[in-house]
Amino acid sequence: MKPTNDFVVPLLTDLYQLTMAYAYWRAGRHEDQAVFDLFFRKNPFDGEFTVFAGLEEVLRFVSDFHFSDRQIDYIASILPTCDKRFFAWLKEIDCRQVKIRALREGTIAFPRIPLIVVEGPLAIAQLLETTLLTLVNYASLITTNAARFRLAAGPDKTLLEFGLRRAQGPDGGVSASRYSYIGGFDATSNVLAGQLFGIPVRGTHAHAFVSSFSGLKDLVDRTIVDPSGRQHDFVDMVLGCRKELGYENANESELAAFIAYAQAFPGGFLALVDTYDTLKSGVPNFLSVALALQRLGYKPVGIRLDSGDLAFLSKAARAMFRSVSEQHDVDFTRLSIVASNDIDEATLLSLNQQGHEIDVFGIGTHLVTCETQPALGCVYKLVAVNGQPRIKLSQDITKVTIPGNKEAYRLVGESGSPVLDLLIQSGEEPPEPGRRILCRHPFEEAKRAYVTPAAVVPLHECVWDGQLRPLPPLAEVRAHVAEQLRLMREDHLRVLNPTPYKVSVTDTLYSFVHGLWLQEAPIAEIR
Amino acid sequence: MKPTNDFVVPLLTDLYQLTMAYAYWRAGRHEDQAVFDLFFRKNPFDGEFTVFAGLEEVLRFVSDFHFSDRQIDYIASILPTCDKRFFAWLKEIDCRQVKIRALREGTIAFPRIPLIVVEGPLAIAQLLETTLLTLVNYASLITTNAARFRLAAGPDKTLLEFGLRRAQGPDGGVSASRYSYIGGFDATSNVLAGQLFGIPVRGTHAHAFVSSFSGLKDLVDRTIVDPSGRQHDFVDMVLGCRKELGYENANESELAAFIAYAQAFPGGFLALVDTYDTLKSGVPNFLSVALALQRLGYKPVGIRLDSGDLAFLSKAARAMFRSVSEQHDVDFTRLSIVASNDIDEATLLSLNQQGHEIDVFGIGTHLVTCETQPALGCVYKLVAVNGQPRIKLSQDITKVTIPGNKEAYRLVGESGSPVLDLLIQSGEEPPEPGRRILCRHPFEEAKRAYVTPAAVVPLHECVWDGQLRPLPPLAEVRAHVAEQLRLMREDHLRVLNPTPYKVSVTDTLYSFVHGLWLQEAPIAEIR
Repeated sequence: MKPTNDFVVPLLTDLYQLTMAYAYWRAGRHEDQAVFDLFFRKNPFDGEFTVFAGLEEVLRFVSDFHFSDRQIDYIASILPTCDKRFFAWLKEIDCRQVKIRALREGTIAFPRIPLIVVEGPLAIAQLLETTLLTLVNYASLITTNAARFRLAAGPDKTLLEFGLRRAQGPDGGVSASRYSYIGGFDATSNVLAGQLFGIPVRGTHAHAFVSSFSGLKDLVDRTIVDPSGRQHDFVDMVLGCRKELGYENANESELAAFIAYAQAFPGGFLALVDTYDTLKSGVPNFLSVALALQRLGYKPVGIRLDSGDLAFLSKAARAMFRSVSEQHDVDFTRLSIVASNDIDEATLLSLNQQGHEIDVFGIGTHLVTCETQPALGCVYKLVAVNGQPRIKLSQDITKVTIPGNKEAYRLVGESGSPVLDLLIQSGEEPPEPGRRILCRHPFEEAKRAYVTPAAVVPLHECVWDGQLRPLPPLAEVRAHVAEQLRLMREDHLRVLNPTPYKVSVTDTLYSFVHGLWLQEAPIAEIR
Repeated sequence: MKPTNDFVVPLLTDLYQLTMAYAYWRAGRHEDQAVFDLFFRKNPFDGEFTVFAGLEEVLRFVSDFHFSDRQIDYIASILPTCDKRFFAWLKEIDCRQVKIRALREGTIAFPRIPLIVVEGPLAIAQLLETTLLTLVNYASLITTNAARFRLAAGPDKTLLEFGLRRAQGPDGGVSASRYSYIGGFDATSNVLAGQLFGIPVRGTHAHAFVSSFSGLKDLVDRTIVDPSGRQHDFVDMVLGCRKELGYENANESELAAFIAYAQAFPGGFLALVDTYDTLKSGVPNFLSVALALQRLGYKPVGIRLDSGDLAFLSKAARAMFRSVSEQHDVDFTRLSIVASNDIDEATLLSLNQQGHEIDVFGIGTHLVTCETQPALGCVYKLVAVNGQPRIKLSQDITKVTIPGNKEAYRLVGESGSPVLDLLIQSGEEPPEPGRRILCRHPFEEAKRAYVTPAAVVPLHECVWDGQLRPLPPLAEVRAHVAEQLRLMREDHLRVLNPTPYKVSVTDTLYSFVHGLWLQEAPIAEIR
């Protein structure tokens, strides 16, 4: 199975992966057995959780991994001093000898727990680094961001992703639509994402549509057909309703545009009401058309607000809907109010506090670019070669890696909420429900806890061993995210001062890490 | 000519473009002649300039614009109530009747000046909106960001783009490489971008390469061949140099890795020196290998720093280079020092102030995600239909559009620096060198200036009238950016409190805008 984006080929990598592969090959070490951990060190958005995503594309990439002749020729042209036999080797390789364990896509993840563990020939596993990071970093970031918007909006609101035009490149837009849906959005405006992934697609009209009309004279066809098939002079009906409602001062070019839009979509009439003036013109014109539609037997959908004070305007519009409902024998009280002006997580929280009448949020720039933190810092670190653990030291303690082949378990408390994630050395006895176990902070000596889990969930599953397994449909991944967010303790998820979720190691792994650290770190010589 | 990314198809759009197209078609207005302006309202990064980019991809998209049968089927499936004849029309359309004027790609641009002007059948021009915005917004943003990094680093430093792994999706990475190069970077680590666009590719090795070695015993092959073809025991030579230099305490796994890397790339030896400890281990090990290479007749390249205090470490490393040069009869004083740890524009400016010895900067996350402002807010506004100017009003004055078909000129002062950009109504007499002209702020009545330009540059050129013209090569676009930055007054470009560059309208256009505004804005009725 091929990656969704044609750019996802083995050349989508940093040059140094190829120079390292050559140096491994030149040293006869390219088939040494390596283990690499892909993980992040810090949750994004000042939060305490991350949603892991991107695995399907990783597996498509891995299953299709090979260099074409043209790609080899290009590599040879930029590395002219390399031994020709290296290129012959490069031509032959694929990922059949690679094994990959990973969290299930859509799993809530925490710092230092490997999202993906790649085992295989050193040079091949090395060649996967950049592409895997590219496929996981943004996918997990935008999924996490979408989940945060969902938490902020609450479960009852409809969330639409509107970010394509502001996304970082065409694929940024397509990825944003896909992963926002996984993170909890309901639909996208992006038609290509709809076609590629089966995501629901939504949208109405823009300001340009309204300003393209200069008056009722632009309406050459005045007719509409009602649900029973009879034709009516719709312009006359709307003008009648407008008079009845007392909205004759509203902008007439806007009214013409709304009439034309209702003629095109009589069963899906949702109008953008802020082209000229929301309360003086847009909502009145909408109501004139909506009343005419209703009398014909169509149900109007609602309005979209795209500027101004959304809390105030939504309440004022709802009040107008109620007033028309009371006086004109219709029920417009529950018409949909969509809002879409530069909304970020903070806006959602502030709207909740102020009170508002918005049913649907259309969210673009802040969602897709992840404005508050536009990159997740996933890294890909070598942790073992030929069974020997390897460590990367750093003067910055947060950058020291946890060496060796490891397993990860989620320990669940009696309430059903996860309590802590535990890393153990491969081969150590795994934690068991009901058994008390000492869990240690990987680097801070005194931070320890005894945990007696009610349940234990192994976090990694084999997702590739030369064979591609069936990939779960998007809807299943999306449901997995929602289910886990439901299970997490609320204080880990909240926006303000969330409680860090513990990621621990066993006592054995702790001692092992620190022993290797002392062994590799140079000792200063002071004279 | 097709777009570079296969995702760039007419379905890469917001659904509302299609619903609007249908409503135009249903109203018989789809072939009305429309003019749309694509422009931005505010320069990014708190700066006062923007570099326009993305035009080549826009033109590839426009020249290839058509819906496939499969795409039409998908659209019909999501818009089931639409008249079937609309889909037949959709199947037939292309951009042969569309005319596009634009700034030359790589032009320095300012708020409100249309970057692109699209004229053509209303529904077709409308269908181009989202895709054009997606292709221009990020391209211009990242090009501008790259240009700012170039200005901050100064003309003599080498700048490498290292951002692929942190980019927003695979295409975010590929676009970032391409447009960073246009903005003034010298090379990228992204191999695919190298292949697609002919950008120079650069890179050495990562920490994983170093930590994959556990000692000199990993070096099965101890040999190296010198430039004249003679074989030597390289390990012995390096150990000899190490002894001579007094660096026997440095980490031996790291030394093994450096030896292997030098064996693979004897003429391109650049070592990452911070895996264990930069000054105690990395630089000493580098120098041991470099001295051996030098004695064989190879020229070592230098080191890369990827953590810690870059100013201090670069100065300390340079001091070690000098000391070895003095004592061992080699000239290592000008070895290259590459730095690459989370560098942003502010880091570059701060390094300049502190003094440093870095020759090359590798820049990733902050460059490619444009962290300080991850989206440029380009918009696409209808300004005329069938020769009638259209205006979009807003309670927010900065969102009011300048209606009608316009031309844009850059007025240049005697020093050769641009002074002001002037918008005129199409048909008005253009500004001329030596002729004094009244230039007005488009919305603030009292802001006026008389300008007597030394030269006048028309900003728009016809780039599409049904025919694709030859596209300038990347290097030419890159040179155009550099040349214009050179001509701009320094105070417009500076980081701290830059002077806004004036964008004005003629007196005629001013009166016209304000007349139309009063005509369209509703008047409140207070009772």
